[in-house]
Amino acid sequence: MASLVQACPWCYVGKARFEKALAAFPHRDGVEVVHRSFELDPGRARDDVQPVLTMLTAEYGMSEEQARAGEDSLGAQAAAEGLDYRTRGRDHGSTFDMHRLLHLARERSRHEALLDAFYRGSFADERSVFNDDERLVELAVSAGLGEDEARGVLADPAAYADEVRADEREAGRLGATGVPFFVLDRAYGVSGAQPAEVFTRALTRAWGERTPLEPVDGGGAGTCGPHGCAVPQD
Amino acid sequence: MASLVQACPWCYVGKARFEKALAAFPHRDGVEVVHRSFELDPGRARDDVQPVLTMLTAEYGMSEEQARAGEDSLGAQAAAEGLDYRTRGRDHGSTFDMHRLLHLARERSRHEALLDAFYRGSFADERSVFNDDERLVELAVSAGLGEDEARGVLADPAAYADEVRADEREAGRLGATGVPFFVLDRAYGVSGAQPAEVFTRALTRAWGERTPLEPVDGGGAGTCGPHGCAVPQD
Repeated sequence: MASLVQACPWCYVGKARFEKALAAFPHRDGVEVVHRSFELDPGRARDDVQPVLTMLTAEYGMSEEQARAGEDSLGAQAAAEGLDYRTRGRDHGSTFDMHRLLHLARERSRHEALLDAFYRGSFADERSVFNDDERLVELAVSAGLGEDEARGVLADPAAYADEVRADEREAGRLGATGVPFFVLDRAYGVSGAQPAEVFTRALTRAWGERTPLEPVDGGGAGTCGPHGCAVPQD
Repeated sequence: MASLVQACPWCYVGKARFEKALAAFPHRDGVEVVHRSFELDPGRARDDVQPVLTMLTAEYGMSEEQARAGEDSLGAQAAAEGLDYRTRGRDHGSTFDMHRLLHLARERSRHEALLDAFYRGSFADERSVFNDDERLVELAVSAGLGEDEARGVLADPAAYADEVRADEREAGRLGATGVPFFVLDRAYGVSGAQPAEVFTRALTRAWGERTPLEPVDGGGAGTCGPHGCAVPQD
């Protein structure tokens, strides 16, 4: 399970690093990955969109020089993973509608495709993804969703809202305060865009500790097997 | 996670007992239930349908008296859970197509509804569910699926076949040889239609043993939090 967020460049980079580790993991076919919703700024209004550099300087108190250097460093690390990253001119805004669409995509088995489309849209493409339903619909259709159902979700603010909130409550219970945050078998937590080797170590450790199930039993319960159903004697 | 099967009367009864325990469990909102596919007889041909009593006597070597007594006992235990159960005149056959439809239903968030519809169809209704596409479509529509997409799955034997097989391989890895089989947090296994108290004990034990995640860390990884994204110093 990985918690990722659209407005989080380290999630974009961290997903690529995790996937590199998973691709080389000998038991990768036994690993199920579920992406969950997490908003960094859940109270943000939909139409509150601003340039990333403005946000970094005005809200996070960086100097313009620091902000540009941080973006350049992120761009270099993204490039090292083979990812396009626009270090200048990006927007920042609410990710709530993207997360709602991602829950629709999960039901349609298009989750991974839409997540990648939103990442590219957020970090690599010139056109903003924020407060622009047409852009979100375009990306949803490119990921294989139906245009009408994507529009339907955007038109109804309650659609999949509970699912987004439930993921966020679960993240809170697991102790995640930032993203990316990776949880393995509810036992190990990997915080941040760690190098692929760290994900390999976490996968190896979690896999190695899988133990046979401990039975909880009251005795004499009915079961069905390949040779019929056993009816317990009272 | 619960593994259930349509042709398994103890799964029908066990699901009701598990749900009784879950409804009274104080942390039920934190419990996510996923139903998985498991066929008792995966090699069975689609058109190989026979009366349950014939199967019990011819394939499982019961006397007719034993078979009827077993069905009567199952009927009594089902009734004690408030479930209708026809003890005479039911059919037995391949459940593969039902499992494929259940995977479609999972993507449409109609899984629970379809599972219950198939249970009622299999154990309570007079009309057989086996080798009868029209009946399966009727039940799928009653559970909220689209008629065309249900027909599409039935017309294409490859649709969701891999998903059914993947669930069955996972059941094998977990050591399940019969059903119902309930797995909690990949730590505890409950085999059979145990009394609700046993499920309560298993839920309580699994919940009580949830521990904080152990961090796996390489140091200095980039993360984004409510106050911005930290760029590690190289």
